[in-house]
Amino acid sequence: MTAVVVVLDWFGIIVFAVTGALVASRKQMDIFGFMLLAAVTGVGGGTVRDLLLGVAPVFWVSEPRYLGLSLVVAVLVFFTAHIPESRYRLLLWLDAVGLSFFCVVGAERGLEAGISPLIAVVMGVVTATFGGIIRDILGGESPLILRREIYVTAALAGAGTFVAADAAGLPEPLPLLLGFALCLLVRGLALAFHWSLPPYRPRPGRDPDELRRLGL
Amino acid sequence: MTAVVVVLDWFGIIVFAVTGALVASRKQMDIFGFMLLAAVTGVGGGTVRDLLLGVAPVFWVSEPRYLGLSLVVAVLVFFTAHIPESRYRLLLWLDAVGLSFFCVVGAERGLEAGISPLIAVVMGVVTATFGGIIRDILGGESPLILRREIYVTAALAGAGTFVAADAAGLPEPLPLLLGFALCLLVRGLALAFHWSLPPYRPRPGRDPDELRRLGL
Amino acid sequence: MTAVVVVLDWFGIIVFAVTGALVASRKQMDIFGFMLLAAVTGVGGGTVRDLLLGVAPVFWVSEPRYLGLSLVVAVLVFFTAHIPESRYRLLLWLDAVGLSFFCVVGAERGLEAGISPLIAVVMGVVTATFGGIIRDILGGESPLILRREIYVTAALAGAGTFVAADAAGLPEPLPLLLGFALCLLVRGLALAFHWSLPPYRPRPGRDPDELRRLGL
Repeated sequence: MTAVVVVLDWFGIIVFAVTGALVASRKQMDIFGFMLLAAVTGVGGGTVRDLLLGVAPVFWVSEPRYLGLSLVVAVLVFFTAHIPESRYRLLLWLDAVGLSFFCVVGAERGLEAGISPLIAVVMGVVTATFGGIIRDILGGESPLILRREIYVTAALAGAGTFVAADAAGLPEPLPLLLGFALCLLVRGLALAFHWSLPPYRPRPGRDPDELRRLGL
Repeated sequence: MTAVVVVLDWFGIIVFAVTGALVASRKQMDIFGFMLLAAVTGVGGGTVRDLLLGVAPVFWVSEPRYLGLSLVVAVLVFFTAHIPESRYRLLLWLDAVGLSFFCVVGAERGLEAGISPLIAVVMGVVTATFGGIIRDILGGESPLILRREIYVTAALAGAGTFVAADAAGLPEPLPLLLGFALCLLVRGLALAFHWSLPPYRPRPGRDPDELRRLGL
Repeated sequence: MTAVVVVLDWFGIIVFAVTGALVASRKQMDIFGFMLLAAVTGVGGGTVRDLLLGVAPVFWVSEPRYLGLSLVVAVLVFFTAHIPESRYRLLLWLDAVGLSFFCVVGAERGLEAGISPLIAVVMGVVTATFGGIIRDILGGESPLILRREIYVTAALAGAGTFVAADAAGLPEPLPLLLGFALCLLVRGLALAFHWSLPPYRPRPGRDPDELRRLGL
């Protein structure tokens, strides 16, 4: 089990770093721009989580291999970006696996820190999505959360399932597996069928003058 | 007095969360986009303050009701956004009350942490305004600070008055009340009369070639 | 030596704060907009470094003169922005000195905190460049890292040289001087000759259908 977690951890960082490097390739940055975007995407979500939880220093300062891995990915993608580009749909699916893993790992770190279930779920979502959010802000892309995609939602479903299963007392690897599976299922269905949640649709409000007449 | 502070605390979070959710409605996000923007706007300023002061974990991790409140607001606004939209001017005034409260509370947290008066004032301004700044960045809006409005200025006036009154030795609730009142007055006058501070106006600089000839 | 470091420290903050205030002048902000941008640019890089390293509170909370200096610079530039504007190239060179100093100081703070050499180099780059990155995001400018300039690269060269020279056991001021000199040299050559690194150039990827046929 531990070996599986370690492999998924590395896998998640690598996939996220690739998506960061691909934004750099789209903006035709130089190799250090690739490194910066790969690094913030790979370790950004876990960094924000550690800052909020008060884990000091953040995880990649004490375990430099996470950051090193992101930087190696950046260099590789700089010379081979046409490969992940031409397999963009494959990349989206790998990214879904990374998302599913990080949302349960982030929530687990929260529970370990002894925080309430609601906040543990939030930490899962933050870990899984804030790397991509920072990537889009730094790279000048239309932010992830503005695109009408089931992405944050999938992370929420996974983290919520994990925390609920843990609270229900299910034995050790089961909550992780259930949370991982549900996030992957939700994100996968969204990818396969181009699902999205209903957006807010404006309705005509009452006329402000009318409201004033009504004394509101 | 304590009850008043608690009520204002909740009130401030609610109003700020509503402004976050309204950005989400303007961008036609789904319900989880509403939650994300409502949450960062409601608790973002206090979060940045706690990170800078080294308060770990940040306040809403140990007191989840603050974040929970923002999320409830997000859901309510998702289904009723036409109401705050049609009463936008009322919302601006409620936001002014939240701003006035948070600038003094933030400065007080700074003084409690034993920092210098200048930094306490800065913490008040950060608490009151950074939620809105993060909201605008994540929501892809023209940033708060680029609009020519007396907003940061009002928070500065309120936090400065509070810290000065406290340093002058005024008895307990008086510094809070004075700071709150001055911020509300400044922001209210700005809202009522569309005030703004004089912006920087470019003057033609000296010609670079001329400067070079002068040896500068 | 210590006096030189103190002078360079102040110098770096001043120059960075001026570049922040100049973005505010370009956006025709009011005086408090100048203060906000000057402050985040002057102390932003060191703030992010301290947060990541777990130094709490961040440096300018315990030593308010750094923030105070940024605010004074903001006020001065508000009334005299035509001077730095008309001497923009001079400012770029002064900024290069600030960059060179901050990249070695940031890396040194990392080594003092007992972290690994790779992370110390990263801390140098973060200290030198994140103030400018936050400035561009808040000011709504095209981000520093999207412009094709040797800027992050120069900071990396300087921080890397410092850490390598320190690891090689060179006596005290030498690693600092070497790192400072190399960053200044790289950035200076880039400024003088309009150098930039080769950007990523897209090559036509294989056709996705072909890949599918190949079973990839």
